[in-house]
Amino acid sequence: MEGIGKMGLNDYQDGENLQLACLIKDAQAKTTKTNSQYLALTFSDQSGELSGNLWDATAEQVAAFQPGVVVELTGKRSSYQGRPQVEIQALALAPEKRPEDFVPQAPESVADMKDALRPFFTAIQEPTWHQIVVALVAQHGEKFFTSPAAKTNHHAFAGGLAYHTLSILRLAEAVCDLYPALNRELLYAGAILHDLGKTLELSGAVATQYTLAGQLLGHISLLDGEIVATCQAQQLDPNSEAVVLLRHLILSHHGLLEYGSPVRPQVREAEVLHQLDELDASLLMMDTALAKTTPGEFTDRLFAMDRRQFYRPQE
Amino acid sequence: MEGIGKMGLNDYQDGENLQLACLIKDAQAKTTKTNSQYLALTFSDQSGELSGNLWDATAEQVAAFQPGVVVELTGKRSSYQGRPQVEIQALALAPEKRPEDFVPQAPESVADMKDALRPFFTAIQEPTWHQIVVALVAQHGEKFFTSPAAKTNHHAFAGGLAYHTLSILRLAEAVCDLYPALNRELLYAGAILHDLGKTLELSGAVATQYTLAGQLLGHISLLDGEIVATCQAQQLDPNSEAVVLLRHLILSHHGLLEYGSPVRPQVREAEVLHQLDELDASLLMMDTALAKTTPGEFTDRLFAMDRRQFYRPQE
Amino acid sequence: MEGIGKMGLNDYQDGENLQLACLIKDAQAKTTKTNSQYLALTFSDQSGELSGNLWDATAEQVAAFQPGVVVELTGKRSSYQGRPQVEIQALALAPEKRPEDFVPQAPESVADMKDALRPFFTAIQEPTWHQIVVALVAQHGEKFFTSPAAKTNHHAFAGGLAYHTLSILRLAEAVCDLYPALNRELLYAGAILHDLGKTLELSGAVATQYTLAGQLLGHISLLDGEIVATCQAQQLDPNSEAVVLLRHLILSHHGLLEYGSPVRPQVREAEVLHQLDELDASLLMMDTALAKTTPGEFTDRLFAMDRRQFYRPQE
Amino acid sequence: MEGIGKMGLNDYQDGENLQLACLIKDAQAKTTKTNSQYLALTFSDQSGELSGNLWDATAEQVAAFQPGVVVELTGKRSSYQGRPQVEIQALALAPEKRPEDFVPQAPESVADMKDALRPFFTAIQEPTWHQIVVALVAQHGEKFFTSPAAKTNHHAFAGGLAYHTLSILRLAEAVCDLYPALNRELLYAGAILHDLGKTLELSGAVATQYTLAGQLLGHISLLDGEIVATCQAQQLDPNSEAVVLLRHLILSHHGLLEYGSPVRPQVREAEVLHQLDELDASLLMMDTALAKTTPGEFTDRLFAMDRRQFYRPQE
Amino acid sequence: MEGIGKMGLNDYQDGENLQLACLIKDAQAKTTKTNSQYLALTFSDQSGELSGNLWDATAEQVAAFQPGVVVELTGKRSSYQGRPQVEIQALALAPEKRPEDFVPQAPESVADMKDALRPFFTAIQEPTWHQIVVALVAQHGEKFFTSPAAKTNHHAFAGGLAYHTLSILRLAEAVCDLYPALNRELLYAGAILHDLGKTLELSGAVATQYTLAGQLLGHISLLDGEIVATCQAQQLDPNSEAVVLLRHLILSHHGLLEYGSPVRPQVREAEVLHQLDELDASLLMMDTALAKTTPGEFTDRLFAMDRRQFYRPQE
Amino acid sequence: MEGIGKMGLNDYQDGENLQLACLIKDAQAKTTKTNSQYLALTFSDQSGELSGNLWDATAEQVAAFQPGVVVELTGKRSSYQGRPQVEIQALALAPEKRPEDFVPQAPESVADMKDALRPFFTAIQEPTWHQIVVALVAQHGEKFFTSPAAKTNHHAFAGGLAYHTLSILRLAEAVCDLYPALNRELLYAGAILHDLGKTLELSGAVATQYTLAGQLLGHISLLDGEIVATCQAQQLDPNSEAVVLLRHLILSHHGLLEYGSPVRPQVREAEVLHQLDELDASLLMMDTALAKTTPGEFTDRLFAMDRRQFYRPQE
Repeated sequence: MEGIGKMGLNDYQDGENLQLACLIKDAQAKTTKTNSQYLALTFSDQSGELSGNLWDATAEQVAAFQPGVVVELTGKRSSYQGRPQVEIQALALAPEKRPEDFVPQAPESVADMKDALRPFFTAIQEPTWHQIVVALVAQHGEKFFTSPAAKTNHHAFAGGLAYHTLSILRLAEAVCDLYPALNRELLYAGAILHDLGKTLELSGAVATQYTLAGQLLGHISLLDGEIVATCQAQQLDPNSEAVVLLRHLILSHHGLLEYGSPVRPQVREAEVLHQLDELDASLLMMDTALAKTTPGEFTDRLFAMDRRQFYRPQE
Repeated sequence: MEGIGKMGLNDYQDGENLQLACLIKDAQAKTTKTNSQYLALTFSDQSGELSGNLWDATAEQVAAFQPGVVVELTGKRSSYQGRPQVEIQALALAPEKRPEDFVPQAPESVADMKDALRPFFTAIQEPTWHQIVVALVAQHGEKFFTSPAAKTNHHAFAGGLAYHTLSILRLAEAVCDLYPALNRELLYAGAILHDLGKTLELSGAVATQYTLAGQLLGHISLLDGEIVATCQAQQLDPNSEAVVLLRHLILSHHGLLEYGSPVRPQVREAEVLHQLDELDASLLMMDTALAKTTPGEFTDRLFAMDRRQFYRPQE
Repeated sequence: MEGIGKMGLNDYQDGENLQLACLIKDAQAKTTKTNSQYLALTFSDQSGELSGNLWDATAEQVAAFQPGVVVELTGKRSSYQGRPQVEIQALALAPEKRPEDFVPQAPESVADMKDALRPFFTAIQEPTWHQIVVALVAQHGEKFFTSPAAKTNHHAFAGGLAYHTLSILRLAEAVCDLYPALNRELLYAGAILHDLGKTLELSGAVATQYTLAGQLLGHISLLDGEIVATCQAQQLDPNSEAVVLLRHLILSHHGLLEYGSPVRPQVREAEVLHQLDELDASLLMMDTALAKTTPGEFTDRLFAMDRRQFYRPQE
Repeated sequence: MEGIGKMGLNDYQDGENLQLACLIKDAQAKTTKTNSQYLALTFSDQSGELSGNLWDATAEQVAAFQPGVVVELTGKRSSYQGRPQVEIQALALAPEKRPEDFVPQAPESVADMKDALRPFFTAIQEPTWHQIVVALVAQHGEKFFTSPAAKTNHHAFAGGLAYHTLSILRLAEAVCDLYPALNRELLYAGAILHDLGKTLELSGAVATQYTLAGQLLGHISLLDGEIVATCQAQQLDPNSEAVVLLRHLILSHHGLLEYGSPVRPQVREAEVLHQLDELDASLLMMDTALAKTTPGEFTDRLFAMDRRQFYRPQE
Repeated sequence: MEGIGKMGLNDYQDGENLQLACLIKDAQAKTTKTNSQYLALTFSDQSGELSGNLWDATAEQVAAFQPGVVVELTGKRSSYQGRPQVEIQALALAPEKRPEDFVPQAPESVADMKDALRPFFTAIQEPTWHQIVVALVAQHGEKFFTSPAAKTNHHAFAGGLAYHTLSILRLAEAVCDLYPALNRELLYAGAILHDLGKTLELSGAVATQYTLAGQLLGHISLLDGEIVATCQAQQLDPNSEAVVLLRHLILSHHGLLEYGSPVRPQVREAEVLHQLDELDASLLMMDTALAKTTPGEFTDRLFAMDRRQFYRPQE
Repeated sequence: MEGIGKMGLNDYQDGENLQLACLIKDAQAKTTKTNSQYLALTFSDQSGELSGNLWDATAEQVAAFQPGVVVELTGKRSSYQGRPQVEIQALALAPEKRPEDFVPQAPESVADMKDALRPFFTAIQEPTWHQIVVALVAQHGEKFFTSPAAKTNHHAFAGGLAYHTLSILRLAEAVCDLYPALNRELLYAGAILHDLGKTLELSGAVATQYTLAGQLLGHISLLDGEIVATCQAQQLDPNSEAVVLLRHLILSHHGLLEYGSPVRPQVREAEVLHQLDELDASLLMMDTALAKTTPGEFTDRLFAMDRRQFYRPQE
């Protein structure tokens, strides 16, 4: 984590001078009405984001300052229409720094998450499910621990996919303790795999975009295909009941056809997986928005919560 | 529980003679095409339900054998179009027996549920919420432990209301352990009260019907009114933030306006209460239907689960 | 009404100088691209609204010129992008003037509306309804005659609530004359109370905002709670048929669950109240929009009329 | 009205013998399980309807007793499964009687309705509207006063179309008195014509069916076509503003595209016509259902009121 | 086709005696009110279907006469409630006959369909698509030419899948001729594969049922998995653009998420494939229903055409 | 086509000077923050569109440079925020030029389209349909060949109506060849007339607007009225089966009530016409958008295709 100053982008106050390395998250070339070119930039590091304009940008600057590159930024923190910004004084490429060090990170470290996941793998003793889960996590492992769980909305940070998966597993464990009729192994296996297709759907944690396969096929079908490929590699019958149940949990986990599941949950554990997925995602979205809100006020409208605003009670 | 034979209605096989006390759950006077009158009856006890026709019913019999009365039934178990029925040989009123002994019961005893609920009451230390919750449960206590949670669908058994409430509280405890930003006291208070209006909406556990107030106002508004009345009795301001938050949890717990909540959840704990309510209700509906289904088969269509059928895997 | 010049904000032509007292309805601090601060202001008085920018605003000015304060405005009327505006030359607080004198008013005076309402109160002879209606209007009386009926959309002017209520009563009278099977007393009682909860839901006629209780509970449940509280104070049974019918009219008057009624109309007078509420609201919205439209043209899209535009025929 | 006995079908009690002339409203040939043929008949007269089976029906009887013919019925009133029926003892054609004397009639006589309509025609002074309205009512006059307003649901009785039209006009008059900005002449003209297409859409008051044009085009487009034809006959421009406004009221009077209007109301009077149409239709449906319901009970589900049940309060 | 008499089930008139071999399509054991058992049977052959009851059925008969077996049927054609039936006089198993000879067949022979399909395979020159299409049709070839295209609704006959595919290809050829910008090879490849998953989703042409994989995964995901498996076997990259485009056509061909496609068409040929699929399916459903309808009458309501009825014009 | 330079608006590169005649398609008077007036202009010719601002516009210029006038434009091509624009150097009216020479044209000439249409007219031998089609096309002929098929979206170019009609007829011919049960004459007649009402609904190809009749009645009802008027002129019965079928095809061709058809298709040819209309419209919209898109990229969101983006594969 060397390479980042003591303070992050969001640790400065209005009027303070700042100098630090950060990532260009978004860059748009624009022109003023008087025809001079400028770059509208969004910077990010692990502390958050900050926007600013680079006035009178040269063609070289427009070409160099692309989303995903790390820069050394010198400027002064101010406000524009109630929103914080930076008045840029100097901007230079910092190619020796790694972009992935400047994206927001999951609240738990990769090592901790790996430790926390281990017992859930162990609990899956049914051989087919165990075999498929182990093979697929091994295959996508590195991306599993670095990908976000979404392009925007919930868990849109490095490691978000693993963190979201782990949170659902912890909920699943509690629910299985309370409702012993549930098949714990099937639910764990489905939870581990349910969003793993996002490693193929999204381009990664830095400047996240949809891949072509992600846009045209979606992470649900992508992972279903991966299961079939794994079955073939491991000489398992993709239409055996055990595999069909696991594929069903993946395919149905969005709950409704309108949300992109080609089938609705028709197995008890599939319905529970869908509900726990929704519960964890909405808790994270509400928590994130409420943390930015003054007590006694409402959050902004949350697009993925049906545009609702949430109230943060007085402390 | 004296007064019930060793075996219940559902413990007999086809062709066996049965003689036992049970409840008339439904009774409809009908006429054959040749103009003789008969009664189409549904009997119930704690083991389940069984139907049968009383042929050539007299006017006295039609008047006597009403829903909600206990009878002594003699007959023979058979099948009609694939469904079990009883060929009635004799039927007599058994007025010395109590109808409430012949309705299905929650899986935990009232005493156990009271014990299990106590810590949740204790955990609510915020004085306004504590005061309101204690007062309302004291006031509706007896019905709270005997009412069903619904007329049909989920938790439609005596004690179902308390059992459903307790299940949500247990889920809420687990979720609060995993997501510490949640206000545990508010969530517990809302969970305890969320369906308490059903004691006013429904007529009770025997031959459950909607009351007029239940039909025209609904349990959500009924309980909201009870909170206001309690505030007035206890000299609390019904529009203080603490009371408004609690009322909001009750009013919004159906989640969507289409499902009868006049407002959508706009407080984090309200959203969680709604989701846990749905989770427990759907788990109970799936469990109940799957328990009646052979492994390798699908359940009947579950009306309250959007008419889906659920698959019971091979053991 | 002293304190207002002969002419209102909307009585000036382009290019004329204006000097008058008016209300600040909206104020937003903004910054130009060259980092100088200005205030984007909306002024209002009984003649309507007018916008203008206060350039190079000082921190003191930003603090002083808040929504809801009365100011003395000197400037020149002009146009910006086809819309009228004022070029501000001077702006000073006018604390001796009352904000409520500068908000649009209902077309009938409070005194006239009181006179017009009296016979409807008298016509309600059923004792329970009479008692509740009299008590609640007495309690909320002042706000009843000064509140708007909505934050935006229809009847968003001082006295709008009473005026909208009176209009519905006049329609109800005509409908009862034509359809004698209707229970006139129930319909009148429901009409008088149906929107009275807006006195709790909204902050008042000047710079109208939702209250916290308004946002989280809504005016429908707020008034239902008030009825229950009144019953308790007056020792009426809140679940008697008479009270249940009245509460049902309030709860169901939005007609559809999607529009925030927790129950749909299930009583004839409830259905009629809902339809007359809609009829009066849509007539006022159409009338208001058409009055601003040139004959032969269409109005702007009316958000609350499903974004339809209405045509004003050639005279 | 000679030809009908002192008592109608619904004036008898269970067990009484009846002998009277009535209309066959519906007739379906059926076969018992033992292969003997019978006719399931529904009889009607102005007092209502009654069903009964003609056992061992001959081929001649099946051919003769068709919907729409008048018969002399001898039998005994009884009940089958809680519903009144007639045990048929004799049945004979009564060809000398007129079917139209045995269908339910509007509550006002044709003469009274003609008198009541006259002032509304007079009030339409705009020459184009007057000319079109007079021509079309003259052309369809006889059917206008004998047709039902619907096949089932509301105003499904002889004269229902004229009665429904008159009721809307009376509502329109009251609304125009209260909202003087409305164009009374346009609203009256639209109200008179709005359902006149039903004379082409439906086959008449006896055994009402959809015509082919009714099924494939609908009464809205049928009447719009009639207006165009009238314009051509009277040398009026069908695309002049006056005609376009009137056509718009007809085309849009169902309010929503989903209900079969090709355009939504975009003129104030069109919106009002739509709302008054709905108000009168729903009042008649509720009144009819409530009149058949015991105080303290709910009506059957009303299909055209979104399957709601309505409560009839205790007297 | 030996084994079928000169006449089929639907070639007899009322009152005629019939004796022929046919298939039991459906069989339900029922009991009369007097407790004697009977079998309600539906017979089928290539001429259509006919129902009849086998009275006083023995336990052996109930066990033997299952759906999918061929029987020798002797009886008399009659009518029950307007529908044709057979009064069964004798019924015997005919185990020497093949069930598949008694199901309705596509209008073209398998040999003709194979000939007609050949040029479409040849036209696909893009190597990846050619390789996948050839491999999958080879693998599922026999079922491709014998399966129905649906359990009910359209193309529910043996060979229906191939016939429906061929019809779409012929439409696709005509459309590509008129709109040369379309990629003909991609459209043909998508059309050939689009419903091939039905060979896995359905149990076959005789007594068609959903398989477990069909019910829980659906034919869309089943075929997508098959493509991935084929890629692995043929060492093709399943996420290359060529494969992604082909998979997209399969996944999106239901057009809307609500209809079970996990993604909507986002490629021109995908949109065209969806529309041609709908066009052919609706033409076949309308043609089938209209062929059974008298000129001048409407068909029954067609469930899969939004319950519409279609009019058959006078010849 | 004289009067247009060798190059059109879209044939210049950034930085090149341009001088040519073109049409003002849109003109909006605006004011800068410093209160100087300018005109935001959109120019068009057959090569496409280009925008630019006329700074410091005089009142005379604002009055003169209206949508629909032809101007001589001198300027320099540049880019503003990634979009091409023209920096205007001089602008003068060119009243000697015809606006219709500067609107985009259908890909086939009017003469070619007339030739192509002729066989379709000849094929309609049913006398009623032939008579109506010939009369209506004769009456609206000139506009039929110059009108666009829509204000925006698909076929929004001069001759678009005839071109869209011809494309549907070519599809219809191919479909009738493949499905011989279709009534080819009815389908052709419906296809020719289906959008002919757009000649009344829209103001023409230059600066297309809705007419009042178009806005309040819609092209569907407008053409239905024209058919009725033609029947009256030609002494045909508008309610004969032949006319009713043709009117039904026009009225139902939008397919769903929500899309403005007052009835849904209930005749086979009506369903086919609707589907072919959709197929041709969506093909043209996709083709137009894809032609502007780089291979490997997605189009902009297409509003009339449910806001989908379409992918243009790598060549």
